[in-house]
Amino acid sequence: MTASYGPVVPTDHALAALRPLPAGAAHLTPDGLLGEWQDRNATATLRHCAEALEEHGNLANLRRVTGDHDGPFTGMWFADTDVHKTLEAALWELGRSPGRAPAFVTETAALLEKAQDPDGYLDSFYQAGHRERQWTELHYSHEMYTAGHLIQAAVAAARSAAGDAAAQQIVGVARRFADLLVQRYGTGGIDAVCGHPEIETALVELYRVTGHRPYLALATRFVGLRGHGLLGDDRFGPRYFQDHMPVQDADEVTGHVVRQVYLLAGAVDVAVENGDQDLLRAAERLWESALSSKTYLTGGQGSRHRDEAFGDPYELPPDRAYAETCAAIGSFQWAWRLLLATGRARYADEMERLLYNGIAASTATGGTAFFYSNPLQLRTGHDGSGEDAPSQRLSWYSCACCPPNLARLMASLHTYAATGSPTGLQVHLYAAGTFTAGGQTVRVETAYPWNETVSLTVTDAAEGPWTLALRVPAWCADARLSVNGSLVRAGAQEGYLRLTRTWRPGDRVELVLAMPPRLITAHPRVDAVRGTVALARGPVVYCLEHADLPATLAGEVFEDLELDPSVPVTAVRDEAGIAPVTLHASIRARAGAAGALYRSAADVGTAGTVAATVPAIPYFLWANRAAGPMRVWIPRTPPGN
Amino acid sequence: MTASYGPVVPTDHALAALRPLPAGAAHLTPDGLLGEWQDRNATATLRHCAEALEEHGNLANLRRVTGDHDGPFTGMWFADTDVHKTLEAALWELGRSPGRAPAFVTETAALLEKAQDPDGYLDSFYQAGHRERQWTELHYSHEMYTAGHLIQAAVAAARSAAGDAAAQQIVGVARRFADLLVQRYGTGGIDAVCGHPEIETALVELYRVTGHRPYLALATRFVGLRGHGLLGDDRFGPRYFQDHMPVQDADEVTGHVVRQVYLLAGAVDVAVENGDQDLLRAAERLWESALSSKTYLTGGQGSRHRDEAFGDPYELPPDRAYAETCAAIGSFQWAWRLLLATGRARYADEMERLLYNGIAASTATGGTAFFYSNPLQLRTGHDGSGEDAPSQRLSWYSCACCPPNLARLMASLHTYAATGSPTGLQVHLYAAGTFTAGGQTVRVETAYPWNETVSLTVTDAAEGPWTLALRVPAWCADARLSVNGSLVRAGAQEGYLRLTRTWRPGDRVELVLAMPPRLITAHPRVDAVRGTVALARGPVVYCLEHADLPATLAGEVFEDLELDPSVPVTAVRDEAGIAPVTLHASIRARAGAAGALYRSAADVGTAGTVAATVPAIPYFLWANRAAGPMRVWIPRTPPGN
Repeated sequence: MTASYGPVVPTDHALAALRPLPAGAAHLTPDGLLGEWQDRNATATLRHCAEALEEHGNLANLRRVTGDHDGPFTGMWFADTDVHKTLEAALWELGRSPGRAPAFVTETAALLEKAQDPDGYLDSFYQAGHRERQWTELHYSHEMYTAGHLIQAAVAAARSAAGDAAAQQIVGVARRFADLLVQRYGTGGIDAVCGHPEIETALVELYRVTGHRPYLALATRFVGLRGHGLLGDDRFGPRYFQDHMPVQDADEVTGHVVRQVYLLAGAVDVAVENGDQDLLRAAERLWESALSSKTYLTGGQGSRHRDEAFGDPYELPPDRAYAETCAAIGSFQWAWRLLLATGRARYADEMERLLYNGIAASTATGGTAFFYSNPLQLRTGHDGSGEDAPSQRLSWYSCACCPPNLARLMASLHTYAATGSPTGLQVHLYAAGTFTAGGQTVRVETAYPWNETVSLTVTDAAEGPWTLALRVPAWCADARLSVNGSLVRAGAQEGYLRLTRTWRPGDRVELVLAMPPRLITAHPRVDAVRGTVALARGPVVYCLEHADLPATLAGEVFEDLELDPSVPVTAVRDEAGIAPVTLHASIRARAGAAGALYRSAADVGTAGTVAATVPAIPYFLWANRAAGPMRVWIPRTPPGN
Repeated sequence: MTASYGPVVPTDHALAALRPLPAGAAHLTPDGLLGEWQDRNATATLRHCAEALEEHGNLANLRRVTGDHDGPFTGMWFADTDVHKTLEAALWELGRSPGRAPAFVTETAALLEKAQDPDGYLDSFYQAGHRERQWTELHYSHEMYTAGHLIQAAVAAARSAAGDAAAQQIVGVARRFADLLVQRYGTGGIDAVCGHPEIETALVELYRVTGHRPYLALATRFVGLRGHGLLGDDRFGPRYFQDHMPVQDADEVTGHVVRQVYLLAGAVDVAVENGDQDLLRAAERLWESALSSKTYLTGGQGSRHRDEAFGDPYELPPDRAYAETCAAIGSFQWAWRLLLATGRARYADEMERLLYNGIAASTATGGTAFFYSNPLQLRTGHDGSGEDAPSQRLSWYSCACCPPNLARLMASLHTYAATGSPTGLQVHLYAAGTFTAGGQTVRVETAYPWNETVSLTVTDAAEGPWTLALRVPAWCADARLSVNGSLVRAGAQEGYLRLTRTWRPGDRVELVLAMPPRLITAHPRVDAVRGTVALARGPVVYCLEHADLPATLAGEVFEDLELDPSVPVTAVRDEAGIAPVTLHASIRARAGAAGALYRSAADVGTAGTVAATVPAIPYFLWANRAAGPMRVWIPRTPPGN
């Protein structure tokens, strides 16, 4: 089998239950939702990011270093990373649509090479104006985080456009920086870690691209050195950057979410390449800890704005959900690594949940406006004037980490849908497209997640038995499978339905994943949503948005609305609507909501008399109309009312 | 009548429905709770603060300016204010126990005078090391906030120890700084305001002390100039420091809570001295806005840690309640000013609520450890390692604004209990002590808030009719009044029972305020506490703390506990217990709390079988034993379980 392709490519020696598909073996078509998002990314988001880098000075910062720009440094001190992430996105895109590298890639590659110090250092904040602080404030500096994103761009360059001169230039720049890190911080060097993880996973991937073991050794060193207090105490304490306890010993995720999930993605990479089962188990244990008490229904993570942190267990306020877009992306990448290492469907389930909710919600339908934080509730009277919790998506942020992070994820999205081997294909994410493994190609046709049916047609078949494995999501209680029209009675094994046979071109598999609307409640320890329900269908979480209220309810205060769970929720199709499927629920406005903020518990009030059927829309589509209140968790009318 | 005394003394011309008592006319005795707190403040807190100022470098910062200390500036850039507030506390204490000024006062007075610039400027951060930034960053600098606290110390000096040389020295220093402000920012000077309000109320009080009108004019100018964008945008936007809209136009409290309530206290001062009814009405309207949707059951305000801000309406999470101690103090001071201006009992009700809950909770029983933020819930597994949300009170903070603020409030607490005139006394806070107005003295005996009965004995009587007005708190549905053993059938007027008669020494009034345990629920729009109840008795809010669980429940997860509201809550007396009165409720542990974080809403679980009677303790006494989970809002067992 040809070498795997994508952002994560474990070596042949790695612990790996599953392998990414080779280059060119996965395609998403724009008639499916994932393919549509990928195309939108290519045509709208990526260009938007490249323009923003010019407009907001990220590229000018680098030109200051080369002497081609005269002006102050602008933006965050780690503004270079937005350049690197956009570059990575453009390079995955180049892999998807091979051809000449676009001007953004060639010009940026040349700029980076010109800006790089002779010893390999490259960080425009420290190079011009803060040289005396270089390497002196690793808890804060993001210098290795910056190097990590540069390296990830180089990994995309090497895998997507190895023959391209600009790609080679980027690889060269990244390797020189990586070599400098090895020299300073490698075995026998300084014991240190970066305040913001990212370098770990990047170095492992650079090792995978180059075969140069010192990169792996340095990543291993960084994972091992963390948790020993090397970063000091700083403003938010050592838990903030997971420096309070070694990864192997930790039993709960803590601190800044993006740092935690990036670190754990890197820990999995290090574990599988070193055959370190203990470290892999620690990463699985921490994932379990996150999912059991510190993750939103949307897959989002991070309950606190103050330090962008996981909160305490079960502290999951919907209104102040931080649920940073980058955290969702990092969680997706972490889950992917665990999926490859273990083959356990729960990781793919989580990727799916993130994709259709926590991640998808961040981008406006047009692809050029974004949420940084992704709350599950917006109240009437919300002050959305700040960047911290805006009422609508913004085109850019003063800390613009999320948009280019989305761009690089979306540009490589096709590589996450399926894995394969010479003897079979494993489909994890359902989307219209084609996937090839072991010489056999399957065309997937589906309007998932709106439709329940996924049709897979073998278009090229190879000799001998070959296994098609199809994930049955945990949310699905009723999966039906047929081959060439005949129902197959096969139970899912560890989350996958497996069909092994000798296939012929034209063989057709149909998987029907029943998607009745679901009413969901949270664990009773989640105080913030007690007495409420959420709506979902398939992998999609729904929400109530003010714009959808009928005239009879539009004059009520949004926070007085309650859902009557005794009336069945129905899925309604409208291809011309804001979403192909909305969920219609019986909503009434609570009566007697006037009155004191605190009152006798005997004063239970009365249920509202005005009831109406209201469509709930997919959460990821909220805030694409006029700004207004929204909620995922809807108070339920008490029994008997 | 002799001149009023205390931190707030409106002039004779001011709009004022009520007048503070004169110096020496109010005493709290330590057999009552308020007097006990005031004594604890004098013997423990005040000394602790003075020592901390030495230990943490606040005094050393000033000695750097005078050349008597050689070392770096330490602490927050507004660290001088902790000196000023402690000085103010010591001066109120000097008023309470007249005599020679203690060494802390004389030495600090001399230090301040020596450190002051010839033109009156005094701010040790800017004077030594940051001189070039002086007056250049008012949005951030706290320079006038610092001046304000210096002035308030001077006001205490002038009112409590006018004949003392050190007191006169402090007044001189403060006036020179105030005169400098008038010169720079007064009529015809620079249009500017300070990012952190405080100077407004201080200048009005200095005007009241000195009769020097330019101080009032400058305060009026500062209130009027706010809300016009003079402070710029900064990190959290103009709402953060209430610079987005003039006070007169605002219809909701916003931004940083301490800034908002200090500003509005100053606005009331300016309004009453200028006879500005519009401004007074605006302050009342904003108070109403705060109390109707942005105040915790404890009186605490501030729902967000990130920017120490009021949140959106009804955003009142108990776990992430910020409810800063200084905000509660500021709210108390704001309410006092509104009470004096209007005579409306609701402001006294709020002062009482704050005192026994939001404020009292901040101080450990020993008086030397403090909370900065005052959450209404602490979860199992809470990370209390940081200063931001510690599990226990800390002896000091890197930003130590709260402890000395408590010290100055407690040292002047007796001045807030009652108001008076030649023809009567109005009692607002019930506490053992003596109060004199119009030549008539009343001795109050009570174990309030533990006991329902307040006994008032006339010890000195004057000629002619004289009115005793006694507040009936809004929480009290049954107030009984008797004079010399005879029940008086008098309804409360605007929150006060009024007895007008010619009194004789020995006349005895007894007020019985019925205090049945109360089960409280929040407005249904407060999502964060849906499905829960809180317990209160009289003005005291209660909480469930882990230390009080009986053996049958101690092994359960605290978050699984529910209160059965069908079992009556009883008040139990135990003078030897943690509190003289605890509230006993029926608590059971929810069964089946294991399971997924999100599950089908049909999976309602079952009520627990293990039920026990558990004492709830006064909220203000929590965290005085081993660290453990606590909650004010307790999930209620659903009806039918």
